[in-house]
Amino acid sequence: MNFETISENRSFGGTQGVYRHKSEATGTDMTFAVYLPPAARYGKVPVLWYLSGLTCTHENAMTKAGAQEWASEYGIALIFPDTSPRGEGVANDEAYDLGQGAGFYVDATQEPWAPHFKMWHYVTHELPELVFTNFPLDRDAQGITGHSMGGHGALTIAMTLPERYKSVSAFSPIAHPSESDWGRKQLTAYLGNDKSAWAKHDATLLMRDKGYPGEILIDQGAADQFLELLKPEALAHAMAERRQPGEFRMQQGYDHSYFFVQTFMAEHVRWHAERLG
Amino acid sequence: MNFETISENRSFGGTQGVYRHKSEATGTDMTFAVYLPPAARYGKVPVLWYLSGLTCTHENAMTKAGAQEWASEYGIALIFPDTSPRGEGVANDEAYDLGQGAGFYVDATQEPWAPHFKMWHYVTHELPELVFTNFPLDRDAQGITGHSMGGHGALTIAMTLPERYKSVSAFSPIAHPSESDWGRKQLTAYLGNDKSAWAKHDATLLMRDKGYPGEILIDQGAADQFLELLKPEALAHAMAERRQPGEFRMQQGYDHSYFFVQTFMAEHVRWHAERLG
Repeated sequence: MNFETISENRSFGGTQGVYRHKSEATGTDMTFAVYLPPAARYGKVPVLWYLSGLTCTHENAMTKAGAQEWASEYGIALIFPDTSPRGEGVANDEAYDLGQGAGFYVDATQEPWAPHFKMWHYVTHELPELVFTNFPLDRDAQGITGHSMGGHGALTIAMTLPERYKSVSAFSPIAHPSESDWGRKQLTAYLGNDKSAWAKHDATLLMRDKGYPGEILIDQGAADQFLELLKPEALAHAMAERRQPGEFRMQQGYDHSYFFVQTFMAEHVRWHAERLG
Repeated sequence: MNFETISENRSFGGTQGVYRHKSEATGTDMTFAVYLPPAARYGKVPVLWYLSGLTCTHENAMTKAGAQEWASEYGIALIFPDTSPRGEGVANDEAYDLGQGAGFYVDATQEPWAPHFKMWHYVTHELPELVFTNFPLDRDAQGITGHSMGGHGALTIAMTLPERYKSVSAFSPIAHPSESDWGRKQLTAYLGNDKSAWAKHDATLLMRDKGYPGEILIDQGAADQFLELLKPEALAHAMAERRQPGEFRMQQGYDHSYFFVQTFMAEHVRWHAERLG
């Protein structure tokens, strides 16, 4: 698989790169970012996938989450995929929370989304093949995290493929989309009216159904302006009911912004590094 | 002086705020950002002014420099002013490096810039009066830093008012504007053809003339794409010739981006905290 380099910047002794490739999964050009820590000069390093939220591209977390410092210190790579296919020939919606920038990490089966909106396959299969072939990354040491819609993606992917993702965390995830206005509209549009197709894309339902074999770390801002849409209480209940190992932390005073994400990023990177090392 | 709150976000236990006020200096509304560390809840804290570069607003460093974490840890406040007056009635130029977003931290005397472009007075007098009146900040513990055009501003302001700015550092400053295409055009436009008016806005000339009574920290990326415009060699020479105490560091592999700034931000905040504490 070919890819082109858009930019590479030295960052905390490593390299923050931005790359573009033609995706078979989405049928579009896709842009992604990879941070390689200094340790990657001497061998393969563990990988932390970071999935972003609504309206984001590969760029938001790359520039605002402050993760590179800790990835450098702990010697793990970061991968920042885009959140959807994009471009003129790609279906879209006027709403910020559907279509481009809002792929929800599912493989759409419904028109007009089905031809391009294959973000589950893209993030879990196609992009991994590309990055493990071309970068010094340890395929056997992968963790996954994300923010908001990306926290939803991280949790649902990790619970579905736990043998692959050996650590998982989330920042203010969309925790119960099948019962939220951040979810019902999108899951209906992408997957249709049959709610049985939604269940594997709902972290709360997956937690009730099977959980995750390792520990899970969740950080949620108590002053988050989207609490009604995120529904953290549903996930917290499901985690406790299952006796899911891990931590669900309600952080007083914090909202949904990257100021929140940045504040707790060091602890999340360390969380993953300790489990992937 | 009145001001309004645009936003406040919890960040590393403190508060990242964005505010707007009517400036007499510029005759426009001006937006600025203040980060207050947790320590500000218990009394006045030292202040680090951060001046931004060409094209920037108050927002770039606030979101991309990663400074809040260290300001929180060391208990000092951060202030991020805008880089120029803005708005429909304000003179501008098609070039990115003149007019709005490119105030160069001078008080313009020439038309069409003179009515609004009073960034020296704004940053050194009007905004300090506002923030020291309204925030728990220690007027006797001020440091100043900045990036690129903002590094130029930090150095020239600190060397002109060393009794007020008790610490100074800079990231890849425009070091010798009177001999650079990042400087000649702007100083001519804002201050006129008489080069004697330029000298107090040229860090290299100020260094030759009087230096700074404390230590100075300069970080410059060796792979900076703007080295020809920044002219770090002129400042390094002037610092060494004067036996100016401090450090001039050429950082291998780093460019002009915020990936560079972010990498060394912890050391700069610590540098200031140690001298302001």
